[in-house]
Amino acid sequence: MAKRLGRRTIALDPPVYLSAHAAIVGQKEGEGPLQGTFDLVSGDTHFGQKTWELAEANMQRIAIETAAGKAGLSVADFDMILAGDLLNQCIGSSLASVRSNVPFVGLYGACSTMAEGLAVGSCLMNSGAARCLCAAASSHFCSAERQYRFPLAYGGQRTPTAQWTATAAGAAVLTDQKTPVRVTHVVFGQIVDMDVTDANNMGAAMAPAAYDTLSHLFEDTNTQPSDYDRILTGDLARVGSRLLRDLFARDQIDLGQPYDDCGVLLYGSAQDVHAGGSGCGCSAAVLCGDILDRMERGALHRVIFAGTGALMSPTSVQQGQGIGGICHAVILEGA
Amino acid sequence: MAKRLGRRTIALDPPVYLSAHAAIVGQKEGEGPLQGTFDLVSGDTHFGQKTWELAEANMQRIAIETAAGKAGLSVADFDMILAGDLLNQCIGSSLASVRSNVPFVGLYGACSTMAEGLAVGSCLMNSGAARCLCAAASSHFCSAERQYRFPLAYGGQRTPTAQWTATAAGAAVLTDQKTPVRVTHVVFGQIVDMDVTDANNMGAAMAPAAYDTLSHLFEDTNTQPSDYDRILTGDLARVGSRLLRDLFARDQIDLGQPYDDCGVLLYGSAQDVHAGGSGCGCSAAVLCGDILDRMERGALHRVIFAGTGALMSPTSVQQGQGIGGICHAVILEGA
Repeated sequence: MAKRLGRRTIALDPPVYLSAHAAIVGQKEGEGPLQGTFDLVSGDTHFGQKTWELAEANMQRIAIETAAGKAGLSVADFDMILAGDLLNQCIGSSLASVRSNVPFVGLYGACSTMAEGLAVGSCLMNSGAARCLCAAASSHFCSAERQYRFPLAYGGQRTPTAQWTATAAGAAVLTDQKTPVRVTHVVFGQIVDMDVTDANNMGAAMAPAAYDTLSHLFEDTNTQPSDYDRILTGDLARVGSRLLRDLFARDQIDLGQPYDDCGVLLYGSAQDVHAGGSGCGCSAAVLCGDILDRMERGALHRVIFAGTGALMSPTSVQQGQGIGGICHAVILEGA
Repeated sequence: MAKRLGRRTIALDPPVYLSAHAAIVGQKEGEGPLQGTFDLVSGDTHFGQKTWELAEANMQRIAIETAAGKAGLSVADFDMILAGDLLNQCIGSSLASVRSNVPFVGLYGACSTMAEGLAVGSCLMNSGAARCLCAAASSHFCSAERQYRFPLAYGGQRTPTAQWTATAAGAAVLTDQKTPVRVTHVVFGQIVDMDVTDANNMGAAMAPAAYDTLSHLFEDTNTQPSDYDRILTGDLARVGSRLLRDLFARDQIDLGQPYDDCGVLLYGSAQDVHAGGSGCGCSAAVLCGDILDRMERGALHRVIFAGTGALMSPTSVQQGQGIGGICHAVILEGA
């Protein structure tokens, strides 16, 4: 049974174990600083499909199947799949799991989706509703760019605060069988809207939500940043992660060395992604590649994975609505 | 702890209690056969707002606040809100809960969202992750019509199989305190795609998914349709619900008198809605108005609420993709 700890945090008892994970990315992501940590780098941006939507769906499906395979399972062994993406009506995830014959729980948390899936999935595991499930998320530069901003061929200028939607998918398998890496705590975030209305500055829109969730997490668990080997947000990128450090500095809390952001980690400084990466797949692929690999090897012991999402649609932005940020977090413990 | 029963069904132990519910609808819905069962019928389609998206958000917010009030709570007392809608990036639900200061779990299940929220929420309650939460869903004819089909002013013709998106929202409060109505079982559905590609025939796309989920439910619980006072799908409307009866008839199972569909129930035959109602708010408002009222009064004892969703986007339909159906179900027991 999960136990509520303080105002926000949920302590899992027993912890929920991660038995496998997979990260699938596009060429650009595969050429960044995390090269060598992905299960597949596709040279074909279409992932063998004729539309960008099917490309994203296929990428997410490959991530789920790869994770299942690495866990020694087939997809049909999952009690359920929890997944989401950025596309209208989350069509990437629906198309990814349409032939799975596995119960499907659709989530929408914008770029926080991987963390939302791990958080909801961990609680479902603790309830006994599932003994083994898969949480997955994806994004694709080409499907997102066309939907959120401009047709690709238009070649629109980007502002310095803009983020680059990663072509990436991640999937993680949760199980009740003991493995070296486990989810010990979960924090569901509330929506925080500081009246940021610029869709090209999502980092600023999301940083206050990350601050809110992480503040509660530290308080509820009576821990501080230095108690963790890594505190990862995903994806505030350079602008938002600086803001997050500033917000904590006001409380005399230094996020310090452990803190980093998946949107900063995924691309190198020469890769022309402006403020950094974004998209559900960005944090999903960084977690389900490099981070969980390192936790399994014992190189990282205690990690906060805090997914951050910007809750807006092109319509809401055109109508001048503020962009609400949200941040769901999980605490992972390794070998 | 929840227990898995057979291949798909999850038995909740203890059951999860429903302490309050609210249904908010537009004028057309308020003039239908269920008039008098709603908490508010708004004569103003804009719900006091300047855009359709804000109108839908405000309607959902009123549903959540009304449900909280009827439970003797304020919204801040919820451990979390689980909500979703049909709008791109589920913006209706985000805007509805942006000032709630309550952890928010975004769901996407198309018109199955109310059932998905009750199902996920019930398992979260059973895990101990929440002691009291709110599940909500909404749809608005004007925001949906513009997004999925044509600008309202265009006055496009509708096919006889088309469904009418309800302007409606429902919210239900789940609690661990005993009340007369409880959720006893949950079934998460898998996506079923029978290659229906006509977005004006969603009933046909969803009926096979409803058949799949309900078949498992009957088998896992060793029950038959006549064991229930009501078996409600939402929203297959007239075309889809006839198909569902046919699919069960092939197995020599008669859904019989208990079976009905929220999309059929919401509107009268003179209301010109073609095949019937649809939209996340349709089944949400029928359940959170008439059905739960009758369960509390003891007029209905055992009810299956099976939310059905068509997993498609305008883009996927234009690209010729099949429309996957999904159906999540809960079994409710009353006084």
